Amino acid sequence: MEEQKAEYRVDYYLTAAECDAQQEMSLPLLTQRLIDIATAHADALGVGYDYLIKENNAWVLSRLSIELQRFPSIDTAYSLITWVEELNRHYSERIVEIRDGSDEVIGYARLTWVAIHIATRRPADLSAMLEKITPSERRCPIERHPRMGKIGEADMVTTYRFKYSDIDFNRHVNSTRYVQLILDRWGLDFFDRHRVSRFDISYHAEALFGETVEVRSVGDENTQDVEIVRDGAVCTRARIKFNRRS
Amino acid sequence: MEEQKAEYRVDYYLTAAECDAQQEMSLPLLTQRLIDIATAHADALGVGYDYLIKENNAWVLSRLSIELQRFPSIDTAYSLITWVEELNRHYSERIVEIRDGSDEVIGYARLTWVAIHIATRRPADLSAMLEKITPSERRCPIERHPRMGKIGEADMVTTYRFKYSDIDFNRHVNSTRYVQLILDRWGLDFFDRHRVSRFDISYHAEALFGETVEVRSVGDENTQDVEIVRDGAVCTRARIKFNRRS
Repeated sequence: MEEQKAEYRVDYYLTAAECDAQQEMSLPLLTQRLIDIATAHADALGVGYDYLIKENNAWVLSRLSIELQRFPSIDTAYSLITWVEELNRHYSERIVEIRDGSDEVIGYARLTWVAIHIATRRPADLSAMLEKITPSERRCPIERHPRMGKIGEADMVTTYRFKYSDIDFNRHVNSTRYVQLILDRWGLDFFDRHRVSRFDISYHAEALFGETVEVRSVGDENTQDVEIVRDGAVCTRARIKFNRRS
Repeated sequence: MEEQKAEYRVDYYLTAAECDAQQEMSLPLLTQRLIDIATAHADALGVGYDYLIKENNAWVLSRLSIELQRFPSIDTAYSLITWVEELNRHYSERIVEIRDGSDEVIGYARLTWVAIHIATRRPADLSAMLEKITPSERRCPIERHPRMGKIGEADMVTTYRFKYSDIDFNRHVNSTRYVQLILDRWGLDFFDRHRVSRFDISYHAEALFGETVEVRSVGDENTQDVEIVRDGAVCTRARIKFNRRS
């Protein structure tokens, strides 16, 4: 049996074509890389897709928090290092440390995963997984996911209809697309003056191809609360904190 | 001096989070990878960004043709192998061979690059580059880029306004976003029944953040001609050929 790696590392290179207008890694791309490395590590630990599907269950990302001092910049290397911080019958909490090309830590992400039955969409019990995985003692220094309630009256409301390229291999809206939809509320000049310092998102209901959602937001130039709502049901809630660029 | 590699290869892995609803590599992602490998090879040959910017010039993708028997599928390796097929004072033509995880060739791409002056946007002369690069004798088997004229009266016209996440590190609309905008004209069920077998796109004028374009298309279930137009000026023209999935 292959030795289980409690920590799992992947090295990447940020190409020019992957960058945003500020010549940095975009938040949607980082979100995708976080999901990628979580998936790869779960596979390596023997608790990935192949393991869960035997009981007709699948992993679903429930909450994600990202906090970065700075984003990887154009034409540089960066690395992700991940470990399981907590595992119980209800969820698995995974940390990802983000390092720049000099191997200096520039931020962390915390991902909460649940397993659901692919037909009933009911939560699955993860207890059996405790025999296979021992969570790490290593703690993540960033604050836990905040409790985000209804945002009430919004400052800004836009609508969007999901298209072919928004849909993932499970035929739901891709988790990274919600992130994009949220960031697209602000213009280039806003991102020239501000950068995201913290991003929290929780996924509630899964949207599908052709569905129309309302994107509602409220806040100021430091903090914005956003919800994506379909027929009155919340699909995702998010909170973004911005720092002024110097 | 480092030995120049006339052929340049990069191996990739297609993660689940990167796939489309048909559990395959999407055309926008393939486009980005083609641009990535072209950029990396040009850098390795000493004719990349750093070389051109000395004369205030930069590479711009002018035309792209892609022809694939099938797309890389979910959770599999794939490789790209590239070489310069032609170089003259006006443009450089580069080929990319696409292989699946068994190293079997599944398609080709042909990319035509020009250099333009970053301030005047006028074409630059590539003659000096001929001392640095000898084009390969190896020929690409797919047909050359077609001449695409005005599409005339369109079957379908939609409008789109470019947002933050559409903009690239040069602060123009990202070349891959036009591809996405074009594919998003059709629904999931269409892509369940058809796959793209050939895609040709030519880039004419660069669109910017906040600009609104018309996407106009005409054709049938085998071939669609599309143009993206801003205030009557064509930004891109494309032709897509579809095969019925068996």
